[in-house]
Amino acid sequence: MNAAVRAVVRTGLYHGLEVFGVMRGYSGMVEDDIFQMESRSVANIIQRGGTILKTARCKEFFEYEGRKKAYDNLKKRGINGLVVIGGDGSFNGALKFSKEFDIPCIGLPGTIDKDIAGTDFTIGFDTAVNTAVEAIDKIRDTADAHDRLFIIEVMGRDAGYIALHSGIATGAEHILIPEKKTDIDDVVNSLAEKEKRRKLVNLIVVAEGDEFGGAEEVAKHVKAKLPNVDTRVCILGHIQRGGSPTCLDRLIASRMGYHAVESLLINRHNVMVGIQNNKMHYTQLEYAVKAKQKINEEWMKIVKILAS
Amino acid sequence: MNAAVRAVVRTGLYHGLEVFGVMRGYSGMVEDDIFQMESRSVANIIQRGGTILKTARCKEFFEYEGRKKAYDNLKKRGINGLVVIGGDGSFNGALKFSKEFDIPCIGLPGTIDKDIAGTDFTIGFDTAVNTAVEAIDKIRDTADAHDRLFIIEVMGRDAGYIALHSGIATGAEHILIPEKKTDIDDVVNSLAEKEKRRKLVNLIVVAEGDEFGGAEEVAKHVKAKLPNVDTRVCILGHIQRGGSPTCLDRLIASRMGYHAVESLLINRHNVMVGIQNNKMHYTQLEYAVKAKQKINEEWMKIVKILAS
Amino acid sequence: MNAAVRAVVRTGLYHGLEVFGVMRGYSGMVEDDIFQMESRSVANIIQRGGTILKTARCKEFFEYEGRKKAYDNLKKRGINGLVVIGGDGSFNGALKFSKEFDIPCIGLPGTIDKDIAGTDFTIGFDTAVNTAVEAIDKIRDTADAHDRLFIIEVMGRDAGYIALHSGIATGAEHILIPEKKTDIDDVVNSLAEKEKRRKLVNLIVVAEGDEFGGAEEVAKHVKAKLPNVDTRVCILGHIQRGGSPTCLDRLIASRMGYHAVESLLINRHNVMVGIQNNKMHYTQLEYAVKAKQKINEEWMKIVKILAS
Amino acid sequence: MNAAVRAVVRTGLYHGLEVFGVMRGYSGMVEDDIFQMESRSVANIIQRGGTILKTARCKEFFEYEGRKKAYDNLKKRGINGLVVIGGDGSFNGALKFSKEFDIPCIGLPGTIDKDIAGTDFTIGFDTAVNTAVEAIDKIRDTADAHDRLFIIEVMGRDAGYIALHSGIATGAEHILIPEKKTDIDDVVNSLAEKEKRRKLVNLIVVAEGDEFGGAEEVAKHVKAKLPNVDTRVCILGHIQRGGSPTCLDRLIASRMGYHAVESLLINRHNVMVGIQNNKMHYTQLEYAVKAKQKINEEWMKIVKILAS
Repeated sequence: MNAAVRAVVRTGLYHGLEVFGVMRGYSGMVEDDIFQMESRSVANIIQRGGTILKTARCKEFFEYEGRKKAYDNLKKRGINGLVVIGGDGSFNGALKFSKEFDIPCIGLPGTIDKDIAGTDFTIGFDTAVNTAVEAIDKIRDTADAHDRLFIIEVMGRDAGYIALHSGIATGAEHILIPEKKTDIDDVVNSLAEKEKRRKLVNLIVVAEGDEFGGAEEVAKHVKAKLPNVDTRVCILGHIQRGGSPTCLDRLIASRMGYHAVESLLINRHNVMVGIQNNKMHYTQLEYAVKAKQKINEEWMKIVKILAS
Repeated sequence: MNAAVRAVVRTGLYHGLEVFGVMRGYSGMVEDDIFQMESRSVANIIQRGGTILKTARCKEFFEYEGRKKAYDNLKKRGINGLVVIGGDGSFNGALKFSKEFDIPCIGLPGTIDKDIAGTDFTIGFDTAVNTAVEAIDKIRDTADAHDRLFIIEVMGRDAGYIALHSGIATGAEHILIPEKKTDIDDVVNSLAEKEKRRKLVNLIVVAEGDEFGGAEEVAKHVKAKLPNVDTRVCILGHIQRGGSPTCLDRLIASRMGYHAVESLLINRHNVMVGIQNNKMHYTQLEYAVKAKQKINEEWMKIVKILAS
Repeated sequence: MNAAVRAVVRTGLYHGLEVFGVMRGYSGMVEDDIFQMESRSVANIIQRGGTILKTARCKEFFEYEGRKKAYDNLKKRGINGLVVIGGDGSFNGALKFSKEFDIPCIGLPGTIDKDIAGTDFTIGFDTAVNTAVEAIDKIRDTADAHDRLFIIEVMGRDAGYIALHSGIATGAEHILIPEKKTDIDDVVNSLAEKEKRRKLVNLIVVAEGDEFGGAEEVAKHVKAKLPNVDTRVCILGHIQRGGSPTCLDRLIASRMGYHAVESLLINRHNVMVGIQNNKMHYTQLEYAVKAKQKINEEWMKIVKILAS
Repeated sequence: MNAAVRAVVRTGLYHGLEVFGVMRGYSGMVEDDIFQMESRSVANIIQRGGTILKTARCKEFFEYEGRKKAYDNLKKRGINGLVVIGGDGSFNGALKFSKEFDIPCIGLPGTIDKDIAGTDFTIGFDTAVNTAVEAIDKIRDTADAHDRLFIIEVMGRDAGYIALHSGIATGAEHILIPEKKTDIDDVVNSLAEKEKRRKLVNLIVVAEGDEFGGAEEVAKHVKAKLPNVDTRVCILGHIQRGGSPTCLDRLIASRMGYHAVESLLINRHNVMVGIQNNKMHYTQLEYAVKAKQKINEEWMKIVKILAS
């Protein structure tokens, strides 16, 4: 996200605007934790994980009083436009705020789950999925040396993209995602059959939001039916949220940040800046909600064939 | 490339085909270094850099005699379709071969330079550019600690994509690419002006095929005009060609390999399998040559604004 | 471990010996899964995680019958010396085997826990601890952005070295290890006091074998007493066992492998090859058991001072 | 180095001292670029490459006037002890300064070349050598795929440690270092012989300070005698100086920084804090100069045997 912050700041300054940073999301707006930013404020941050502006949930912003306080804090500095990086929760807040106080908002899609309608890329997804792949590669070394079955849980409460991409990229035998019902008996039978053929490295990648409730639950099913298989569970967890961003994430964040400011300048208000088919694509914030993505059936077929 | 080999082998086997591997490109075809592949032959390779089939230039394949030998070696094994991973040189050979001997060929775009018409992605580019970014991040640590100017040369004889993407992603002040004329005086003046402002980290990223002839030449120009600036040259070189592939490269390689075999099966012959706007896109091999890409002018503008 | 295998093979061949590889530890000896190795068998493996010889537990080797079978399989190939890479379990097996069948054994310390007497280094420890550090660095990005407390569990059932080293290297506030009793009230009070001072990044690193029973249990204690602190648990798990080895691990493995063969040749039998104070150090296998290490008190003091 | 700075600051504060940071080495002392540091000043830096205090050469400090200015700047803040991180150049400056102005100095060995007498570890070496190993691993992928000879230059003007360690760890066939004369004809003959046996991956690692003058010069010799071998040169350069430090470097830097302050407090003055045989070891600054290290002959033998 730092790359997006940097792009917003420098594009704003280039156009002669004053640019302010708000700490910890809406909390900083409500609590007046706001500071003026110069070009130097964003020097040497493009390669860093996390975000220099920090992040937090803010209950007060759900209430009118909280939003009024936030508005007053912006107003007294003459701030008349807002760029919000986040997911659909943040966008809903922005939309409400914008309507009540006539401050135009621009949204940038910043979620590692990639499940936002109106954009092919979200900031952080490529980094998260590469971190998952590197971790699974390491686990595969052990899986291979020990002839073990590893059931690996990756992030994704409502979306299976991290599981799908990291699973294909590491040659997982099965990928369990929320978007698709899994017949656990099929999975177990296929494992049993592979065990007979002594096909030895077995990886199952599970999104945390899968219908079975994560890797531990899947492992219970497998162990119940295949007690002889040496089965281990790994939950990758928060390592997926940090780390130096990939080139792609830095590029799309820079590009989106640039266009966020450009949008404010031409009065293209209350949109999310996305990228579709390599072109900038603008979605009204009310539609930029968590998307019901359809997982491409072809991918599931490729998983099956390539892992054979 | 191993991910593509794996996908071709397993998709072929899935459809009941026999699949053979040819070592060292056309050399292996001419010298009969060909072996039958099973599912197990491509186990545990998706995460490895390089290619298990190795690669080489083959002079004999330029001559009819060489190609005839190659054909005989395929024929005696009953091989009646070819999947070639490479750039336009490989595709030209495949095309000629295919016309002379009636063997259908499918091309997969495998070049780190990304300069092939008919596809948004080439296998290896994302890995190369992320390797470049990681290396430049490390150099930046020194640039920052010493207040030095680093002029960094990345790969790209005819194409500036690695330079452009890695330069933006690392916040380079200037990016010099073959596709665009650079006014070196502008560069030097901008550096001189920044030195006055004591803006301290300075990175210039140069594609090896840039008009000045690479980083050393650019450094000579800079030193001639700014003798007091502590200037260093780094040529990243072959580290960009190796290393464990990124998630994206493994995914597109898997997808392209799958569709290469599918294409052979439905008699979609002598095409390059590409991806455009997230969809499979097939280009006749004669058109899948090194593309004259136009660099998006917007990118150059973003470079200028964000590095300020 | 591949670096050690490579060193043993090539040093043996250099001295004109025949060298055999045994798959999956003692299982391969019992089941006759043994193959002759050439110089080429170990080419291009030094950088790979895991082990090409795989590993497994072997119940049959606990019984005399199993060991007799193993001996017969060695004998029929004329194998008259054994190099065993592992921990004290493997060494006990080797010792018993060696006494019963007059086959000299050499042990190499291969455990990521580093808790073997007679050597400052064990093969795999440096790689495991660096993997832990990289993972915790990523988690710290999130901890920092969210002002959260992360309780991170690393490997180490009986030994706290991975926890101690990775904890100091990532600036953890508290490090909980099996070798030392922890007063959980002290930990909680110190967190409470830091929260007041708004010192924000809080990391606690816990060895899995710590007296409280791992990170989940520690988290329960903390949450019970500090319900307002946003606390998360991460269990790093098996990523610590894989991955390309560090320079140090490759070096010590090469050096130990070389000296394992040299030891066989000069009839220095039934020892573990270790390194102490930068010099080779040989320990009789019966003493090379899991060491009761004393954790240097100075380290615990440094942890306290530096995390303040 | 940031880990050392952090340790000095926090240990000083723990003992109730005031601690100041000096920017850009002796330059900051001369130019009065000095600032008071708190615990928070060194938060979240242990994982970062480079140094937050920056570094520079300072000509004025060679002259008495410069040192007098520096002294006055320290004096007016009541600074009465100095911790210097660097190599023998920095230590000589510190020694002179200390004698002239009665300010006790403590040296910490901070050089990636590892060639300082009185310590087994220098801050930065382990990170540099692991970076070199990772880069050479990537180059090896290409070397392997293309059957090429790569001649790789690593840092080390007077010392061959980076070359020796990274060369062994990557299985280089030859390692050329300043400490040892190389018979280039031997190298060429061995390559010629290997070419006949079609042993294909060939890596030569050369320290920049080798007698032949670096990798380019070695390549000229090889090409002159083996014109048919496809030979490439890679100069790793400044990537070796940056990057997030390894666990070992963070640990020794923390430990040395802690003992630097402890030394000042007990009036153990004008020493370099080193580690030998896992124990703290203190060397008078006048002896902590660039060491004439003897390269262990055993290592050279191991190189020869293992690369065969």
